[in-house]
Amino acid sequence: MKLYTYFRSSAAYRVRIALNLKGIAYDAVPVHLLRNGGEQLADAYRAVNPAKLLPALEDDGNVIGQSLAIIEYLDETHTQAPLLPQDPAGRARVRALALSIAADAHPLGNLRVLKYLTGQIGVAEEVKLGWQQHWLRSGLQTLEDLLANDARTGRYCHGDTPSLADCCLVPQVFNAQRFNVDMSAYPTVMRIHAACSELPAFQQAHPSQQPDAE
Amino acid sequence: MKLYTYFRSSAAYRVRIALNLKGIAYDAVPVHLLRNGGEQLADAYRAVNPAKLLPALEDDGNVIGQSLAIIEYLDETHTQAPLLPQDPAGRARVRALALSIAADAHPLGNLRVLKYLTGQIGVAEEVKLGWQQHWLRSGLQTLEDLLANDARTGRYCHGDTPSLADCCLVPQVFNAQRFNVDMSAYPTVMRIHAACSELPAFQQAHPSQQPDAE
Repeated sequence: MKLYTYFRSSAAYRVRIALNLKGIAYDAVPVHLLRNGGEQLADAYRAVNPAKLLPALEDDGNVIGQSLAIIEYLDETHTQAPLLPQDPAGRARVRALALSIAADAHPLGNLRVLKYLTGQIGVAEEVKLGWQQHWLRSGLQTLEDLLANDARTGRYCHGDTPSLADCCLVPQVFNAQRFNVDMSAYPTVMRIHAACSELPAFQQAHPSQQPDAE
Repeated sequence: MKLYTYFRSSAAYRVRIALNLKGIAYDAVPVHLLRNGGEQLADAYRAVNPAKLLPALEDDGNVIGQSLAIIEYLDETHTQAPLLPQDPAGRARVRALALSIAADAHPLGNLRVLKYLTGQIGVAEEVKLGWQQHWLRSGLQTLEDLLANDARTGRYCHGDTPSLADCCLVPQVFNAQRFNVDMSAYPTVMRIHAACSELPAFQQAHPSQQPDAE
């Protein structure tokens, strides 16, 4: 199994956590998002993933894009350490938490979006930073509200076992801390982040621990 | 079953298609995104869905947010007219296609994002329209590339049965047409859109057919 990854890509970070939680060995193929005008845009990677985005998983001759689709695939093909609960309502909750990060918050801080803001629209660096922080805070507040007001929240996002939602939460907190967002408004998020950070699966997936880390 | 919806919300539109494809009866509860400063932000709706976004599904005392999580839930609890294929690689492909729309393309044209652009950043109307069209085109091009170069594409996005991916494709084409994107560059997308548009499930989910249509 091959994972096309970049150490700081938060979508790739999600998949690395899932692979580690399940104890699946994989080969990391680094794709540098900034070097050579973005290696994800070059023909070599485009032939792997026409969407030109990271991560992509190659398994059994198939290439799968999109971090959440990859994690669901891993969960369906490797039954150990399930990343979704058994009951449909619980599964829906975990997926909704994951999507509140992966679909609502994270895409707005993506590299190509920031490039459009500074390039085509011509906004200043501090306006760009304000944009990044605004959407990070807004996403974290939603996550906090969803987690703090639901009895199904446990040591982790859903009960006492790490799930798909935790695979998304931790990289999003990493992003927020990187851009100096004050995290004190999100105590439930940070409590879960601390619990996850005690697990080797999360520690070893951290950007700083990757072969391509700078 | 209750669906909190807005006729023109493309995420709600996805769920309406899925409900219709499965033949599930539901009560539509309209939440007006523009009236009264946005009814989705008011306390009444916030109590239903703390994420303050549409759609939300209420079923059996549970509230589920996020269109893709809702559709997966419907698929798990109502086995007729399955919206995902049986094989894990096929399921991953359908989910990745859906996420390429729901997570990569659509969030950038969301109302709250456009408001930030014109409000906080102060961009002109034509710059806002340029932004909308840019991300619509970019998302449609990715979708076209993923569909046109894969033998698993059939009459619909994946084979000859409508899936979760088609539930996302049709509303995204609706958005693009609404903002005058030239669709001639996306022949596979438009061929599938035409095939879907022949089905009553898609026709009846169209914004113009909703009780709250304006």
